[in-house]
Amino acid sequence: MSSYYLPSLESLVEHFESLPSIGHKSAQRLAYFILKMPEERAKSFAKAIVSAKENIHYCKRCCNFTDKEFCNICDSKERDSSIICVVEDPKDISAIERTQEFNAVYHVLHGVISPINGIGPDELCIKELLERLKNENISEIIMATNPTVEGEATAMYLSKLIRPFGVKVTRLAYGIPVGASLEYADEVTLSRAILGRSEI
Amino acid sequence: MSSYYLPSLESLVEHFESLPSIGHKSAQRLAYFILKMPEERAKSFAKAIVSAKENIHYCKRCCNFTDKEFCNICDSKERDSSIICVVEDPKDISAIERTQEFNAVYHVLHGVISPINGIGPDELCIKELLERLKNENISEIIMATNPTVEGEATAMYLSKLIRPFGVKVTRLAYGIPVGASLEYADEVTLSRAILGRSEI
Repeated sequence: MSSYYLPSLESLVEHFESLPSIGHKSAQRLAYFILKMPEERAKSFAKAIVSAKENIHYCKRCCNFTDKEFCNICDSKERDSSIICVVEDPKDISAIERTQEFNAVYHVLHGVISPINGIGPDELCIKELLERLKNENISEIIMATNPTVEGEATAMYLSKLIRPFGVKVTRLAYGIPVGASLEYADEVTLSRAILGRSEI
Repeated sequence: MSSYYLPSLESLVEHFESLPSIGHKSAQRLAYFILKMPEERAKSFAKAIVSAKENIHYCKRCCNFTDKEFCNICDSKERDSSIICVVEDPKDISAIERTQEFNAVYHVLHGVISPINGIGPDELCIKELLERLKNENISEIIMATNPTVEGEATAMYLSKLIRPFGVKVTRLAYGIPVGASLEYADEVTLSRAILGRSEI
């Protein structure tokens, strides 16, 4: 085996392997695929990684990913900025946007409170949310964390923090199958969940 | 959706999606994972792609991947260079090396003849193999293409090309995989196993 070792190949395999849900075999297959790509295509892949990393950062208001100061949703004049939908992850925004049932704004936590994984409230974009509650005119916060134990716990934790502001806090209805992930919810289920939200 | 479009993110997703066995959802998840990586890590990923592409090319003798002129296996003095094992893909070499049963050299075709996918003999490293038959002192060619219709056809095609050189051409044995159960073996495999039975 050692007679077969190529450092540049191994390094590429190791990088692919560090990505989520990619094991050693898949990483190897992907690395070989890169080796067989036309050179410009491989270079453009490398460039896409660097430029995504350089251009994309958190929106100053809602912590969603954006390549400007504020994301397109926060910037939009057509959105109701008095209702904030709190999600775990930017991916969840695309899921909710696909339902076309929601025309207000978002706030991205970038995770959930998870003591087992060493993620406490300070690792999440919670202070930014409280800042918005102080400075903006908010009438309702919709908790749209995933219906998992950690998502629930985070929603409960946040609703306690938000209560002093006298803002209505709601939760997506259990139209979404418990234990699943928002990212994979179908549009119909997700729009039912938005329409049936209830106060915590 | 359009209000949510980030060109650098979409380009990264599109690049991941072009990799084998990665669909749109997975590509999105991988792209988001890159966005959350530390910047040096993302840059080192990009660099790994470019440097693998720049440093690794075909071995001048066996068409395996290498970062030198000849691959380590061709370069080795301990290998029997009169027996060539013909494989479809560099990945197959690692599989055979793991058995530690084979101490000769390889030749990589980089694919199989597949008219449906527009791959003819000229797209494969076949002329390089014939060149070796002319110039080197070869006693046996072992066909180790995959036991698929296309792998079989390629092996048959090659053995016809090789016959004029008066070299022995062999094929990996077919049979039931070790550790598998007879009950689940398919008919073709099982009849090959019966035909190829050996004395205990």
